[in-house]
Amino acid sequence: MFTKVLIANRGEIAVRVIRTLREMGIASVAVYSEADKDSLHVQLADEAVCIGPAKSKDSYLNSMNILSAALTTGAQAIHPGFGFLSENAKFAKMCEECNLTFIGPSWQTINKMGDKSRAKEMMKAQKIPVIPGSDGIVKEISEGHKIANDIGYPVMIKAAAGGGGKGMRMATSEKDFENAFKNAATEAKNAFGDDGLYIEKVIVNPKHVEVQLLADKFGNVIHLGERDCSVQRKNQKMVEEAPCIVISDELREAIGNDAVAAAKAVGYENAGTIEFLLDKDGNYYFMEMNTRIQVEHPVTEMVTGIDIVKQQVLIAAGHKMQYAQADVKILGHAIECRINAEDASNGFRPSPGKINSLHIPGGNGVRVDSFLYQGYSVPPHYDSMLAKLIVYATTRDEAIMKMKRALGEFVVDGVITNVDYHFQIMENNVYKSGLYDTGFIENSMGVD
Amino acid sequence: MFTKVLIANRGEIAVRVIRTLREMGIASVAVYSEADKDSLHVQLADEAVCIGPAKSKDSYLNSMNILSAALTTGAQAIHPGFGFLSENAKFAKMCEECNLTFIGPSWQTINKMGDKSRAKEMMKAQKIPVIPGSDGIVKEISEGHKIANDIGYPVMIKAAAGGGGKGMRMATSEKDFENAFKNAATEAKNAFGDDGLYIEKVIVNPKHVEVQLLADKFGNVIHLGERDCSVQRKNQKMVEEAPCIVISDELREAIGNDAVAAAKAVGYENAGTIEFLLDKDGNYYFMEMNTRIQVEHPVTEMVTGIDIVKQQVLIAAGHKMQYAQADVKILGHAIECRINAEDASNGFRPSPGKINSLHIPGGNGVRVDSFLYQGYSVPPHYDSMLAKLIVYATTRDEAIMKMKRALGEFVVDGVITNVDYHFQIMENNVYKSGLYDTGFIENSMGVD
Repeated sequence: MFTKVLIANRGEIAVRVIRTLREMGIASVAVYSEADKDSLHVQLADEAVCIGPAKSKDSYLNSMNILSAALTTGAQAIHPGFGFLSENAKFAKMCEECNLTFIGPSWQTINKMGDKSRAKEMMKAQKIPVIPGSDGIVKEISEGHKIANDIGYPVMIKAAAGGGGKGMRMATSEKDFENAFKNAATEAKNAFGDDGLYIEKVIVNPKHVEVQLLADKFGNVIHLGERDCSVQRKNQKMVEEAPCIVISDELREAIGNDAVAAAKAVGYENAGTIEFLLDKDGNYYFMEMNTRIQVEHPVTEMVTGIDIVKQQVLIAAGHKMQYAQADVKILGHAIECRINAEDASNGFRPSPGKINSLHIPGGNGVRVDSFLYQGYSVPPHYDSMLAKLIVYATTRDEAIMKMKRALGEFVVDGVITNVDYHFQIMENNVYKSGLYDTGFIENSMGVD
Repeated sequence: MFTKVLIANRGEIAVRVIRTLREMGIASVAVYSEADKDSLHVQLADEAVCIGPAKSKDSYLNSMNILSAALTTGAQAIHPGFGFLSENAKFAKMCEECNLTFIGPSWQTINKMGDKSRAKEMMKAQKIPVIPGSDGIVKEISEGHKIANDIGYPVMIKAAAGGGGKGMRMATSEKDFENAFKNAATEAKNAFGDDGLYIEKVIVNPKHVEVQLLADKFGNVIHLGERDCSVQRKNQKMVEEAPCIVISDELREAIGNDAVAAAKAVGYENAGTIEFLLDKDGNYYFMEMNTRIQVEHPVTEMVTGIDIVKQQVLIAAGHKMQYAQADVKILGHAIECRINAEDASNGFRPSPGKINSLHIPGGNGVRVDSFLYQGYSVPPHYDSMLAKLIVYATTRDEAIMKMKRALGEFVVDGVITNVDYHFQIMENNVYKSGLYDTGFIENSMGVD
């Protein structure tokens, strides 16, 4: 087993990983930008190394500085968290070259799954349902136009190198197509340095459902059930829950088996997630694979009792999977709200600043994954997520009541947060019904 | 169902009850002494009523003021928490007379079980093993002397009206007896206004194990397994865990069934606990019944997934038990540390004061039941417990590692706490073995 692991990340996920490492008796090395010197992950880790200025590209995306930090501190492995370098195949390859274990899949797998259109082709070959669309990258507008006409509108034009909603445009009819294609290409080029695009049919009013996978180095792959992540604003998840209440045991088995087959087909290792769209008739379509831990992993931890970060570390260290598929039981219901420093009444504008007063909810069935402390100044350089508030209860209705109770106790003075907005979501009848889809925020939560 | 419930308590248990009430959609009424006007339970409740000056006897023990608060706010029920009036039969009777539901057993049952020697007789009649000792109260020293000689030393002399370690003396040999008896009588008289004493054989190096019970108004009684509460200092519990690792499934069933039989025999209603001593050979002896929620109830909640406070409210409102015994599964392992404002290096002297800085641990498997907030001044008038830190993991070893991790994150500046002392307990090999007994603190933790 590793004796020391470096966490190439910041914020709550860095704290999350440090906690599990400590529980495993493994020393942790934090890295931080100059803007993060007072951040909680720096204080909690056994060691901390400054890796550069505030800007992500100079610090948390600075592979060389991170690798140097790992080598000089004697870390044997690097946990990338999510975002930043977590799905960067080049960085994973550099780790390998430095004899450092990248806690995640191989760089080859990251490469394969990172190319969204190639990933889709691979899934198709495995007979896993995919969204109808182009076969791979569409080079010419005219070619795209023809494909869109064939599969029928609305269609989505997406960056092959994309993620996080960037480089993505919808064309609702033939006349929109050309502009949408051009805009997506420009945004893709700017965001990812790559203007490769592919086209997909738009599944109307779908749920965003994703399956959590664990795969060891011996070919053992299991799934931990699904998460419903349909509460999204501009493709950014806000609320996630497990299980998804519209998924029957049969459907769970089918979608889970498909996800496992997909992972096996690509020789997947470590934790990963396959995202699907689920339509009203119970048809599901492969969307993409996330080759890293996800923000919303705690809801799966709550309903399965399995520490996913711990499993990541064990798998990366070469341990055999300790669970068979039959050992995985989904018990109870968990909901996560992403508590962000943003002003919901003002276009969700980020609201960094100093936290003057803080009260974090507690008690039975309440989990908070956060990096906040009273007096902390939230830097403006990074994403606006401050905390994840996760509740766990026997039933979904109880979980919703518990979330409302916990949100009611959450006090963050000094920055504007979306705590009240989450409370409104929990009180919304469409949300409460469980039958919401990815259009929920836009259609059911009033002006956005 | 009730629409409004008053909590006749303060501190973390008041917060604990308010949380469950809110999750049930029931309005809460806090009561508070003048010293507690800034306390968290006052802020969290829907309404709050001042019931008198700081001294407990003038406020939290002031039945009349509490009943007035309930009647004027329109509460239909009173949750007594633990301590204060929670085992006061007279108060429970006054509630009944005021047409208020006392969330607990009937005043008659409290009376029966509150008389420790009478309770023991009742258990004996049910063929539940009791500690050899006097048949009821011992009036004369000479009579006690004879009993002690018969059952053999060491013997414990205990206040019949007692609790919390008061009015209790051990006589290790014949020559100690007279002094021990007299001292116990004096202390009992001072503490409880009643110098009735009974005598029991001392079980050598026992574990303190207690069984959690739930009993509805229809005669349905179930147990939720046991807690090991053997980490005690001067009969005050410091660390509790569930399950008790030396208890086999067979023993759990036996002791659980005895506890259920005991509750049925006395017509018990609501949540209650039967405390046993468990010797090294697996023999167990009835000690006493606690007719209220206990401080350490969260460890049972963690391993069973059952919200005990919620069950108390449902039962008091006349609901039928929603669980059969077979529904109760003990999963994983939970440990609770009582975080007290006390100086372990200075005889555990209480350390009230203002909390200048506070960081409460979080993350996966960590629950904190507390009434702390940054800037809060811990009043000197009440017990020193600030928080309960509860962890939950798959195995006991993992729970211990998690507790250490969580204790390491706990920062309470401004008052001295026993956080470091708990860390030492978690690192102690005797504790880690699980084979510790009630002599653990004295024998294994160095000078006390």
